[in-house]
Amino acid sequence: MTPDAGALVDGARAGDRGAVARLISLVESGGDVATEAVARLYPLTGNAYTVGITGAPGSGKSTITDRLITCIRRDGAEVGVLAVDPTSPFTGGAILGDRVRMQDHATDEGVFIRSMATRGHLGGLALATPQALRVLDAAGKPWLIVETVGVGQVEVEIAGAADTTVVVVNPGWGDGVQAAKAGLLEIADVLVVNKADRVGVDETVRDLVQMLELGGDRPWSPPVIETVATESRGIRDLYDAIVRHRAFLESDGRLDAKRAARVRDEIRSILEARLTAQVDQLCAGEGFDELVARVVARSLDPYAAVEKIVAG
Amino acid sequence: MTPDAGALVDGARAGDRGAVARLISLVESGGDVATEAVARLYPLTGNAYTVGITGAPGSGKSTITDRLITCIRRDGAEVGVLAVDPTSPFTGGAILGDRVRMQDHATDEGVFIRSMATRGHLGGLALATPQALRVLDAAGKPWLIVETVGVGQVEVEIAGAADTTVVVVNPGWGDGVQAAKAGLLEIADVLVVNKADRVGVDETVRDLVQMLELGGDRPWSPPVIETVATESRGIRDLYDAIVRHRAFLESDGRLDAKRAARVRDEIRSILEARLTAQVDQLCAGEGFDELVARVVARSLDPYAAVEKIVAG
Repeated sequence: MTPDAGALVDGARAGDRGAVARLISLVESGGDVATEAVARLYPLTGNAYTVGITGAPGSGKSTITDRLITCIRRDGAEVGVLAVDPTSPFTGGAILGDRVRMQDHATDEGVFIRSMATRGHLGGLALATPQALRVLDAAGKPWLIVETVGVGQVEVEIAGAADTTVVVVNPGWGDGVQAAKAGLLEIADVLVVNKADRVGVDETVRDLVQMLELGGDRPWSPPVIETVATESRGIRDLYDAIVRHRAFLESDGRLDAKRAARVRDEIRSILEARLTAQVDQLCAGEGFDELVARVVARSLDPYAAVEKIVAG
Repeated sequence: MTPDAGALVDGARAGDRGAVARLISLVESGGDVATEAVARLYPLTGNAYTVGITGAPGSGKSTITDRLITCIRRDGAEVGVLAVDPTSPFTGGAILGDRVRMQDHATDEGVFIRSMATRGHLGGLALATPQALRVLDAAGKPWLIVETVGVGQVEVEIAGAADTTVVVVNPGWGDGVQAAKAGLLEIADVLVVNKADRVGVDETVRDLVQMLELGGDRPWSPPVIETVATESRGIRDLYDAIVRHRAFLESDGRLDAKRAARVRDEIRSILEARLTAQVDQLCAGEGFDELVARVVARSLDPYAAVEKIVAG
């Protein structure tokens, strides 16, 4: 049965959790029905605020996410959460190991948690994530959290595409430097030193502050927050920092400008995915094999071969 | 003055080092003259054997390359060397810091050494490197060495595109594991544990052998060679291992098959670079800004915007 995108969108708007789950699966899997679903969802979006959370595996992102949900729920707002894991062999909807604890919120109707793993479709997670966020946005969740499991290129890109990006590190020599190397400081709006009850927290905070200062004067200086997420310590400070950053963005039209830049990047990515599909097609035919054979035989050079392919 | 590709190619064939240097700059910089130069060079190539050398910074790749040059020169053959450094701010032709020692060979007419750094042109180093190797091949160097400075994605790709790929690690807990993580074991035809006079060499060799065995039975089992390059120890073993791997590839048409696969990848990469240029063009016009504005205003969704762009 082909799912009816219109009926699912109506269901999601009315608060039907099953419809939300099916819509996310739909936009994840790509294809024409996905495109239709996005077309129907899109006019209903733009009301949610997105927080991206990233950091090395084991830094405590899941626990922070879990406690942040509690914090937001205490304020009465609903939350949608996407846990993005490009390395997981599990399909979307699976509960990943270290995320089980988030299931404390499983019986809370105001919280929707979804894991997303690698999907085969074009552009993969980096294109599927904004669509899944749109489902949650259209379903009326005012707060969205995207947590990425590691600090791979795609994960940094996904977390960096949020309104507020939170980067989590731990105390310890070099952890701040590692974060800088992975390009995490560039995307961080708020920095968290989690497990702040461990040795080395002061040095790590100092390192981070120094490295941030090296970036020069910027209109927003990312605060460095100490947390012990397992004991819920510092989580309110983190939430306050996110709210402050949000207020900063909402002044002077910065949020609109940031989102417009994101739209621009997204359109470009969709275009690239389409052209990659085109390359796949061009390189699949019998004619391609013949051209390769001619280049191998040196009767044609590689650039001339490409000219022939493009000329069709 | 527009350089005359034909005259440069004739000069390079006749052994004019200046012509070789200018041709490499030409194919590095891209554009129509570069394409013409490649067209003229290409029929003259296919005689050189390429060795790729990669490994973490500081592992001693430059010294190994230096000593390998000496080894090959003792056998009477000429050598062309490309030192590829995507992170260097220097332009091609610059001598990178830790490569100064290779200048021992600077007065040897049978050795041509060239550093290549990031170039602005389409596809960057991954596309420019095979063209630069073709210049050296057409100039009659029977042995080519490509050394990459680090183990970034592009560097691994470049070193992995050689006929024989040498991966260099050092003794020490976890270095082998790091190499495996970086995908280096997959591309290694020969593994070198350099600085083998240091503590931990036996463990590192054992780790590497074990990890290679995990890969299952393969027609070629990459040997693990111990070297102390600064003292020229083990370099002859490395050279012998490369020669053995070459003989293996030259049996049963494996080398031809490997090179045909590389031609296929290269044509695909050139095609991708062309389509990326097309995306750049599509995203540069005024029409694109208008579409972005409509998507921001939610009167159009991102996928519909892409449809409009593609439809022209």
